[in-house]
Order: sequence, then structure tokens, then C-alpha cells
Amino acid sequence: MVDIIEKKRDNHPLTREEINFFVTGYVNGDIPDYQISSLMMAIYFNSMNEEETVHLTEAVLNSGETIDLSEIDGVKVDKHSTGGVGDKTTLVLGPLVASTGAKFAKLSGRGLGHTGGTLDKLESISGFNISLTSNDFVKQVNDINIAVAGQTKSLAPADKLLYALRDVTGTVPSIPLIASSIMSKKLASGADVIVLDVKIGEGAFMKTLDDARELSRTMVKIGKAFGKKVVAFITDMSEPLGYSVGNKLEVVEAIQTLQGNGPSDLHTLSLKIGSHLVHQAQITKTLEEAEKLLKKKISSLEASDKFKELIKAQNGEYPDLNDYIHAGDIVAVKSEKPGYVKSLNALEIGLSAMRLGAGRATKDDEIDTDVGIVLNKKVGDKVEEDEVLAYLYTNDKDISDEVNTVLKAYEISDTEVPKKELILDIID
Amino acid sequence: MVDIIEKKRDNHPLTREEINFFVTGYVNGDIPDYQISSLMMAIYFNSMNEEETVHLTEAVLNSGETIDLSEIDGVKVDKHSTGGVGDKTTLVLGPLVASTGAKFAKLSGRGLGHTGGTLDKLESISGFNISLTSNDFVKQVNDINIAVAGQTKSLAPADKLLYALRDVTGTVPSIPLIASSIMSKKLASGADVIVLDVKIGEGAFMKTLDDARELSRTMVKIGKAFGKKVVAFITDMSEPLGYSVGNKLEVVEAIQTLQGNGPSDLHTLSLKIGSHLVHQAQITKTLEEAEKLLKKKISSLEASDKFKELIKAQNGEYPDLNDYIHAGDIVAVKSEKPGYVKSLNALEIGLSAMRLGAGRATKDDEIDTDVGIVLNKKVGDKVEEDEVLAYLYTNDKDISDEVNTVLKAYEISDTEVPKKELILDIID
Repeated sequence: MVDIIEKKRDNHPLTREEINFFVTGYVNGDIPDYQISSLMMAIYFNSMNEEETVHLTEAVLNSGETIDLSEIDGVKVDKHSTGGVGDKTTLVLGPLVASTGAKFAKLSGRGLGHTGGTLDKLESISGFNISLTSNDFVKQVNDINIAVAGQTKSLAPADKLLYALRDVTGTVPSIPLIASSIMSKKLASGADVIVLDVKIGEGAFMKTLDDARELSRTMVKIGKAFGKKVVAFITDMSEPLGYSVGNKLEVVEAIQTLQGNGPSDLHTLSLKIGSHLVHQAQITKTLEEAEKLLKKKISSLEASDKFKELIKAQNGEYPDLNDYIHAGDIVAVKSEKPGYVKSLNALEIGLSAMRLGAGRATKDDEIDTDVGIVLNKKVGDKVEEDEVLAYLYTNDKDISDEVNTVLKAYEISDTEVPKKELILDIID
Repeated sequence: MVDIIEKKRDNHPLTREEINFFVTGYVNGDIPDYQISSLMMAIYFNSMNEEETVHLTEAVLNSGETIDLSEIDGVKVDKHSTGGVGDKTTLVLGPLVASTGAKFAKLSGRGLGHTGGTLDKLESISGFNISLTSNDFVKQVNDINIAVAGQTKSLAPADKLLYALRDVTGTVPSIPLIASSIMSKKLASGADVIVLDVKIGEGAFMKTLDDARELSRTMVKIGKAFGKKVVAFITDMSEPLGYSVGNKLEVVEAIQTLQGNGPSDLHTLSLKIGSHLVHQAQITKTLEEAEKLLKKKISSLEASDKFKELIKAQNGEYPDLNDYIHAGDIVAVKSEKPGYVKSLNALEIGLSAMRLGAGRATKDDEIDTDVGIVLNKKVGDKVEEDEVLAYLYTNDKDISDEVNTVLKAYEISDTEVPKKELILDIID
């Protein structure tokens, strides 16, 4: 093992056997934490080439079980976001593409810290069951083209171990390590076509466009090496996506978007990612046709009906939007001056929503599905003095700190500000 | 702790408090191995500046006890070698400088791997006692100017922990880490004047002159920061020092050198290092006078008498050189062709002597004090076909592998080769 560490330290590429040796040895407990952590730091500094990254992904993938989707007819599509604030894209995208005939077989996770999780949002719908057996999962996708469930199998357990170690040893921000971590889990989930939504900005993992591009290219190459179609969208997460942050609030916004009445950024992103999935799934011949088809599915209400079907199939009760959100109080945050919203810090909004109860600071925290933040103004919007910037949905008595945090998350400029560009690049 | 790792990873200097925090926390068991090892790898890549290195040395020094030599009258001198093959300099230097009145108060170590240890060499002398109490140690230096003993106190325990971890995590070859490791132990030993002998070449820690210079400058600066006079010699260890490798064999060569009949490289090195110690100890006004004085001490036999006194004081029996070495067999290694010795691989000779029994592969191995290697030819020497290159002193039956190893350690060229320069630089 020391030879492997020294080889990487001295900037020589590791072989497939060496990579497999350290991953397998770590999972088995034969190689101690302290050797893996010094190796991770050497990888942080000297990186890994494409071949090494593919081999690392393979070793991590092979450390556990994989989902067998072969009994689902047709092309299975999946989408993964690196995590953002107000990111309810899966709730829109899943029913939308499923309504065209594409098979949306999605395993999802819970939220932690400032980012929410799809499972938490779905579970805010009364009765919604995220625990499906493999058989039920496959059967449901065959029947109605869509299922969204929690992971029951042990997918890529090496990733869990490696990530936990990297988290406490300063070795998280390494592109090959992030890429292989994400891709090992996605490959274990069994889809044929994967769209990755790589977020950048304050509220995201990647801080710069260059890093996001490198991460995206790396993941697309890994996908290709495993015979999968992978497309990476690089999207802005300097401000939250849509207007709503919080579990039930985001379900409402997703339903509105499926009905054609959602925020334009979420609408556009869902259409663009959706058309890549639909096109790659060979439902249409061109991307343009795919987008046209998706617009039709929205206006015909077939997309929102598909969401109803999904909720029913997983024992949920479709929400009555007039009697769904039961926050004890709704507090308006008002601008102290007139002007234009220059920036809106997604990280601060995400953390504030978490503290209101919409998210978890640690894995064991309970969440309150009724609370959250609804933005009234986003970047580029004109705002008057005393005009509402955002509403806090809360069950807490004293939220003066959060009012203050949200107020400070807005930067108001005297001069006009352009709207944020949402989709910054598409790598395929 | 993660903040400290990330700070160093991102190439920001650590503060004295941060360095003290991780050293103390590691010794106390509050900080786990895996965080220290990723930090060590980050230091390997981003290094440490002079201030950080001094603070690290201080923290490691303060992790344990220190030797109090204040009851010894006069300037206490010490010498440390980074370790080489056939390096019996301490055996010569100690008595030599003690014979001038300088106080040579030396704590020494045992050998491991291809390098020997002063304690092992002294213990090959019948009865020699290396376990002195602090009181006896101080008293002996006051009485006869010299004592050489094993460490009984827990000096710089953090260094032991850090070194053991670095050894298995690929983080040994970092100049600030090596410098603080050496200097923390030297400073804990209490001398006022320290000469460091930094070896370079195959048989040594440092492989290049540039690295050795940087290590030397770093250690001299650390010494200065702690108010000590430190001089670093950079000396060649591409071939062994002197002709003998092995415990009793080296004692014999040391005695011959003290009597003025030793190999010229060992003689010269002892004189040069000795004159720095004697001059710094203010026994003479100039370096030249110091060297002249030392030559006188050799020719008058006062230096070799001092070695007799040392052995007697520590209960040893001065060896009868005619009945001292009892190897079962002495095997000659002969040259297969005529020519000139172009190179002689010190590492291979050291490892071969170790396998013959003169050294330890692991800490718990027993050593055989009678065995070893006596070189007959060194770099620059002319050699005839079938002429003896070296003699193996052995108690093993089958040493054909070692004969072969030693033969291969010699590179013979057709054309004349200059002698090796021994002292490559002096940093003070």
C-alpha cells in the first residue's frame, strides 16, 4: 500500500489492479484509514487521469450490489443533480418525460444541510410510500413509466466509506474523486441514459464554471466507458431554483410547473433536460421534436396527470392545493430600500430554510414539511422600499434571526441588473 | 482539525497555535491517525516555511522530557549523523574532542536497516554499559569529558508517533518534517553546540546535494531559533565511510583512526567536524588552531587514551585487537575483471552486511557483532582481475547471494576514476 501512495505522490498513474487493491482492501478493513487518507490527499494534489478515474469508478461500483432494470422494456432514463437550493426538478421532470413513454426509474435520496432531497419532498405528500421492493419498482415502471423510491440495496458501499473519510480529511474537492463518487452510484442504479445537472455557485459543490466543466467532462467520459449515454448540464445555483424552498412548498411549485404555470427557470430547465432524455430514449428523432412533445404534454395536462398517477401508484393522496400547507405563521421580509436585486445568496436561503425546519443539520434531525421560504423577488427584479422580498413559512415563534438572514441574502443595487443565465453549458 | 488540514492543503501557513494543537492532540489521542496522515501529505506537497518548521520543532520538543545538562561545566557539544553505511564517526570524534577538554555528552541510538547504530557498536565491546542514570551521565562528563549512553527519558515522543505514521503513509521525504524530527530530538538532548552530518547518496536519506543543502539550512535555522550553535556538514554517502561495515569491525577501525592509522576519509571527516566542535566550544580561537590541536591529540595518543578511559568508565573491556573478532569464516569477493572502481553502492553494502547479521531488518532482530564486510577497494582504486574487492566476515554457511551482491555493488570501469570528494559543503 505504501508503494501505491508513493506512486501517486510522485505523480505516476495507478494501474487498474492498484486501484482495485486499495478500494477492496479499504472496504474489507485490510487497509487502514490513515493510508487511504494520505492517498486521497496525494490524489487531491496530483489528480487522476481518465483511465484511473474510470478504474476507480469501476472498483467503487463493484464494491456493492447493482440494480437490475433489465426487465423494464425500453430505454431507462435517470437524472442526477449535484444538489442545490429549491431544486425540485425531479418532481417535474419525472412525470413530464414519463408522459412521453420514456421509462423514468429513479432512486433518490434525502436532504442534508442546505440542500433538500426528493424523497423528503415526496413524503410530504400524505401516504406517499418511497419503500418499494425491486419487483414492485420494476412493475410500476413497466405499468406507468415512472417510479421514485429510496435505495434499499447496498449500492457502492465503498463510496460511503471513502466519502465519510474524505469529509474529515480535507480531501473532498478533487474532481476525479467527486466524479467517480457520483458516477459509481448512478451506474449502480442501472439506467441507460443519464442527465447530470451540475450546479455552480454559492449554493453548490462547484464554485467555478471551469471546475464544473472539468467535472462534467470527466463524468461524461466515465459514462461512455461503461456504455451509457451521459449528458451534463451546467446550471446556475447562485440563487435558488424557482421561488419555493421547503418540502410541501416545492411540491406545489412542481405541480404548477407541470400545469404550465411554474417559474420560468424551473420550466425551462425541465424542458431542456427533459428533451435530452426523451431524445436519447429515442422517443423522438431530434431534440427540437422532443421539446415540442414535452410542451404538448404540459398543455394537454398529460404531464400533471402522470404526477397524479405516480402519487396514486405509491399510495399517496394527491394534494388539495387549497388545504395543503399548514404553517403557523407567514412572515414577510421587506426591502429596506428601492432598487434592483443584484444577487440572492442561495446558500444563505438554503441554510435559513433548514433552520426554519425544512431541512436537516444532521442526518437524524426531523423535518417539518410545512415550513420554508417563498421568494417574491429574484435577481434582476425591481423592488420598491418596503416591498416584500420573501415570505417565511414558519412554526417557530422567534424567527427574527432568519428574517435578518434572508434580508441580508439579498443584495440590492441602484441600477438595473440583468436576469441570471440559468443553463451555462451542456457537455455531451 | 479539518480547517487546519484545508488551510495547509490550500497553501496557507499554519500558526503556532494550530501546529501545537495538532501535535498535542495527536499525542493525547484526540486527533485520529487519518487526519494527521492527510495533513502530512498536504505538508509534503505545500511544505512549511521557516516559522512553521520552528513551531513544529517546538511542539514536538515540548511533547516530552528534555535532558538537563546544566550541571556539566563548560560548553556541551554533540554531533548527529543522518545515517550512513560504515559511519563510525562518533566513536572517533567523541574521544578526539573530549581529549581537548570539550564536553561530549552524547545520547545515541541503535541501527536499523542498512545503517548501523553507535550503541550497537559500543556494546560489541565486552561489558560496555550504555544504560547510565542521568546523574551518572552528568558526573562522567564532568569527570572525563565524555559519556555515550542510550536514551532513558521519553524525548520528543510526538516524533516517534509522527515518524511511525509517516513511514507507512508515504510522507517521509519532506524537508521541514525531517528537519523538525531531527532537531526536536537534538534540542531535547541539551547540547549547546551541534554538528549535523547530512549524508547524501544511495546509502542516505537525501539523494541530491540541493535537498541536503535545504535540509541543512533548515536545521541550522531551527537551531538558531532555539539559541544553539548548529553547523551542518554535507558529506558523500554514495560509498561507505572507511573500509569496515559491521560492529566490532568498525570499533577496530575507529581505534586505528584514533591512533592515526585509519582510513583517510574517516580521519579527515573526524578532524573537520572535530575542529568545528572544538572551535565552537571556545577551546581554540580559530578553526585552524582547533585542527592543529586535534592532530596533536592523535599523534600523542591522548585521543585513543580517551577512548580507553570512556570504555573503562562504562565498565567495558578495552578490546585486544588480536583476539577480538571471531567470525566463522572470511570470504573474499574478487573482481572478475581489471580496471578502476567507478562506483561502490553503499546501500547494497549496508543491506548485505545487515543480512550477514551485522544489522537489523526489524527492531526485534538480534545482531551478530562479529560479522560484516571489510572493503579492500574503494572508488578510484585500481583493481586487477581476481584481486580482492572485499572480505565478508560471516557465521553463515551459504553466503553465495551476498558474495554476488557485493560483487555487483562494485562498478568497474576501464578508465581511471577520480577519488570521491567526501565533504561536499558546510552550512553554518
